Amino acid sequence: MGARPLIIDCDPGQDDAIALLMAIASPEEFDLLGVTAVAGNVPLAKTEANARRIRDLAGRPELPVYAGCPRPMVRAPVTAEAVHGPSGIDGADLPEPSRPVEGAHAVDFLVQRLAKTSRPVTLATLGPLTNVALAIIKNPTILDNVAEIVAMGGAVGLGNVTPAAEFNIYADPHAAHVVFEAGVPLTMIGLDITRQAIATSARIEAIRSLGTPPAAAVCGMLEYYGARTTATYRHGPPLHDPCVIAYLLKPELFNGQDMWVAIELAGEHSQGRTVCDLYGRSGAPNARVLERVDADGFFALLNERLARLSVSTP
Amino acid sequence: MGARPLIIDCDPGQDDAIALLMAIASPEEFDLLGVTAVAGNVPLAKTEANARRIRDLAGRPELPVYAGCPRPMVRAPVTAEAVHGPSGIDGADLPEPSRPVEGAHAVDFLVQRLAKTSRPVTLATLGPLTNVALAIIKNPTILDNVAEIVAMGGAVGLGNVTPAAEFNIYADPHAAHVVFEAGVPLTMIGLDITRQAIATSARIEAIRSLGTPPAAAVCGMLEYYGARTTATYRHGPPLHDPCVIAYLLKPELFNGQDMWVAIELAGEHSQGRTVCDLYGRSGAPNARVLERVDADGFFALLNERLARLSVSTP
Amino acid sequence: MGARPLIIDCDPGQDDAIALLMAIASPEEFDLLGVTAVAGNVPLAKTEANARRIRDLAGRPELPVYAGCPRPMVRAPVTAEAVHGPSGIDGADLPEPSRPVEGAHAVDFLVQRLAKTSRPVTLATLGPLTNVALAIIKNPTILDNVAEIVAMGGAVGLGNVTPAAEFNIYADPHAAHVVFEAGVPLTMIGLDITRQAIATSARIEAIRSLGTPPAAAVCGMLEYYGARTTATYRHGPPLHDPCVIAYLLKPELFNGQDMWVAIELAGEHSQGRTVCDLYGRSGAPNARVLERVDADGFFALLNERLARLSVSTP
Amino acid sequence: MGARPLIIDCDPGQDDAIALLMAIASPEEFDLLGVTAVAGNVPLAKTEANARRIRDLAGRPELPVYAGCPRPMVRAPVTAEAVHGPSGIDGADLPEPSRPVEGAHAVDFLVQRLAKTSRPVTLATLGPLTNVALAIIKNPTILDNVAEIVAMGGAVGLGNVTPAAEFNIYADPHAAHVVFEAGVPLTMIGLDITRQAIATSARIEAIRSLGTPPAAAVCGMLEYYGARTTATYRHGPPLHDPCVIAYLLKPELFNGQDMWVAIELAGEHSQGRTVCDLYGRSGAPNARVLERVDADGFFALLNERLARLSVSTP
Repeated sequence: MGARPLIIDCDPGQDDAIALLMAIASPEEFDLLGVTAVAGNVPLAKTEANARRIRDLAGRPELPVYAGCPRPMVRAPVTAEAVHGPSGIDGADLPEPSRPVEGAHAVDFLVQRLAKTSRPVTLATLGPLTNVALAIIKNPTILDNVAEIVAMGGAVGLGNVTPAAEFNIYADPHAAHVVFEAGVPLTMIGLDITRQAIATSARIEAIRSLGTPPAAAVCGMLEYYGARTTATYRHGPPLHDPCVIAYLLKPELFNGQDMWVAIELAGEHSQGRTVCDLYGRSGAPNARVLERVDADGFFALLNERLARLSVSTP
Repeated sequence: MGARPLIIDCDPGQDDAIALLMAIASPEEFDLLGVTAVAGNVPLAKTEANARRIRDLAGRPELPVYAGCPRPMVRAPVTAEAVHGPSGIDGADLPEPSRPVEGAHAVDFLVQRLAKTSRPVTLATLGPLTNVALAIIKNPTILDNVAEIVAMGGAVGLGNVTPAAEFNIYADPHAAHVVFEAGVPLTMIGLDITRQAIATSARIEAIRSLGTPPAAAVCGMLEYYGARTTATYRHGPPLHDPCVIAYLLKPELFNGQDMWVAIELAGEHSQGRTVCDLYGRSGAPNARVLERVDADGFFALLNERLARLSVSTP
Repeated sequence: MGARPLIIDCDPGQDDAIALLMAIASPEEFDLLGVTAVAGNVPLAKTEANARRIRDLAGRPELPVYAGCPRPMVRAPVTAEAVHGPSGIDGADLPEPSRPVEGAHAVDFLVQRLAKTSRPVTLATLGPLTNVALAIIKNPTILDNVAEIVAMGGAVGLGNVTPAAEFNIYADPHAAHVVFEAGVPLTMIGLDITRQAIATSARIEAIRSLGTPPAAAVCGMLEYYGARTTATYRHGPPLHDPCVIAYLLKPELFNGQDMWVAIELAGEHSQGRTVCDLYGRSGAPNARVLERVDADGFFALLNERLARLSVSTP
Repeated sequence: MGARPLIIDCDPGQDDAIALLMAIASPEEFDLLGVTAVAGNVPLAKTEANARRIRDLAGRPELPVYAGCPRPMVRAPVTAEAVHGPSGIDGADLPEPSRPVEGAHAVDFLVQRLAKTSRPVTLATLGPLTNVALAIIKNPTILDNVAEIVAMGGAVGLGNVTPAAEFNIYADPHAAHVVFEAGVPLTMIGLDITRQAIATSARIEAIRSLGTPPAAAVCGMLEYYGARTTATYRHGPPLHDPCVIAYLLKPELFNGQDMWVAIELAGEHSQGRTVCDLYGRSGAPNARVLERVDADGFFALLNERLARLSVSTP
């Protein structure tokens, strides 16, 4: 059945970077059509450049990277340098990208690529959903060619930016609303999952033992990022975005259930919350919400894929 | 140091009824000044009559019961007959109350009793907070004589009426806001706790073996209430309100932490949520939020107190 | 048919003071049962004392004044000393009140007086609606004995505290919601009316020519208050609250229409707005909204009533 | 100094159609770069076709028309066939358009045209602001090349769709928020103005006497549209959108003032309200809000421009 067409929308971010490495290391599973960048963890100029740095690190300098929206749809911009560092991928210590960003805007790439495909495309979204939402608002018919959306964002339980909201949804709740209402198959991978995927010291050492430049960059990023989040995560940082790629590669590592999920757009304290109807009382399901991950299986998969990059990098 | 002055504000409700029995069975710990009823699980006319029926069942017909507010402060009334049955204490099969309700309004009783006391009074609240909030709005100085408020309501995790909100807070979120902002020591016992206090079949049988009328009524109520909630609670019904009394009797059965808690008053999907700042980022603590209960210890305490009623009931 | 039973709920405030003088000067039309004070233009301790000062000035020291709620139901307190001065009635220069405030709380007075009456009582409300709302929430059956409520508050057009909201509604929007939803005949006298009732210099001089102590106090207050509002009202201050009394005395001076009015409780910029369905599209009418006043007729009536006080004051 | 570069964004709509005719009839003042259509009064497929019909009627079949967003950014779509008829320009009775719509999306045309210009472009917006907002979110730097935006929408006073909101803002309040916050010179022409520009019978007859096909179409549309709005406008329909073109042609017909205007995005009854800070208390001005129009001067201008089309149409 061949590799599935995939577009990754991201805001690297250390965890986005690791997710990109996993995806690039999986050519048999993914026909990676392009990477689109969005403002999120750091401003757009940094996220798109970081995406290009990671592409180079993974030995795929020809992979097209598109810059998208530099701001959220409605709310004031918010970034997360306190967690990710000024560059967004502090700890990786990577050179300037080898090639410039593509000329087309990420929204235009999404629209045009989805409009012309004969094979439905999967969207893996690792940041605020601004790019995807704008493509939908501009050209809703592209949804016919979206196979599914797998999004890192939200939480059944507590958020991280506020008690109510997780960063990716909080940073552009209106975009999340557009995507969650779009009517395409949607899998939500929230903090409930990613808080189970903790990069403990032992797991970081296992990666380091791969002995390759990508593995070294991953360890550097995890150590930087982990040091910034010890107050919340004592045993190591959670690997949010790589869970999206792991789910696409090995869904059997995860379980969850279909439910109605609404994005809270108003409220004094609740904006950006993913209101998850776990008990099935509020509406028809519009998302599959993952609840559990086999964390050991996840890290085994991560290591296996990173190991492949050690071969392919010249 | 003697029994602590206590007023119980409630909306019986099977679980309120069991909480009342526990409190009445604890004269060494509580100087129970009165019981105030509020509209909640069922309308006011039923909650106040139910409070009087339980008082009779416990052998304390002289205990004053005051009827309070028949409606919430701002929102439209909501009740929960689907869970509690048309009477609110279906399953208990109790006779008409022996004595009428007191002439004074519950809000007036609260104001007057708190105004004149020389010993600060503890308020145990088991229903929507309308009565307590109105007393505060009318006469804020009574707060000087409130020792602490221990409230069943809210949730750190998901709600029960909606994905966001627990019934007692949802039924009058504005009243909850007034109480949570009042500046007195406040302990929140939310669904996170009460979902740990499950009346399993074995625990119900242990109560039944007490062989007394109160024990029989408790078992009848638990079976009725449990049958209505099996979709959510497979192993038996949660004992929400008795946790408040258990906490006052044996706080060592519980643990929790101080945090900032806000009541969401707006939002399309979030009204009535207790927004709990578990990670300490949003504000100074205004409540102690309980997180864990020793469920076996809790049921042992419940049994021990119910056993006392078997002696004192003529 | 005799004088109609009337209770005035107010937060003096210069314009409340003038309204009180008009009402006290109208014994043939009003059986003034009492005056209730609420926090509003200035804190409660001042509004209730001001009400007593005005009563003395009008030669009715026996008129009972009741102190009510010192805070709004839900929102943070807001006052308007910038307009009314630190005392609330700056410019009047009145002595300390002759008699203390009544012992009963205003809410209790409202409940008890309305509960026992055989003649429905009219409520004239000149401030935030906290007292009236609390009486309704506590004892909704009192509404059976309310003949009508005539409220100064709100606006069809722009507000004064914010572009959306008028002070009395803004200061306690939740209370206004309770009153507007109460189902009793309700007349709203908003800024649309009171901005037509401008105390020009000529009108102030006409009052001064009465030559009495009440007239002198009125002129002093109007000059003080007018000087604080010249930026908005170039030709003189608007007489908000006296319009309520004038409407009760001579409704033919006013016209308006029945319509649906909702109180906006949420919104980022709209809290406290009286959303007025002038075009009849949103719901069944719940209020008569006055739109035009015969300003000359209004000031003639004011002068005529103030002139009566010149006789009765010793 | 030459004709000013202009793009008209619209949702015809009878009044949009008349505005387009006025603009096309003014080649000395406007270098009309293109017309962009958006969903609004009727769905997008109709608004863009209507724009092309009007272009043909005005004798400018080569004028490019671009189709834009078929849905609002966040809220559910709303249309106004009850006012405008199923076609949106009922009463005009026009043939099918002579030429297809352009291939480019309206948002892309806006972005590309604004990106490459050396002369700042004026945007006249006559419908919901979805197209303009999406261009801004995607490519905020285009704002550097926007000379000014003149928007029909909002109201200082009451709305028309709801008591709070005017149709164009109500139909996409989030887009309006983006445009009102964009930081470019913005003139708001709300219902306060357009309710002064009433097409009375006499004014319609004056247009009819021009005796040209465009004049006949205008009269047909005004009669259709007027018949649908008599309940609100007894003397004839208001000419909302043509006021935008008239203001660009003869600003001396209008007066207004700079003020802070916010778009209410939340609220139970207020979504889509243009909160206008007439008294200068809430924030720094971000819009010029027009308040008065010389209605006779406006209709004289309309007639004069329509008369020009009688010459240029073959």
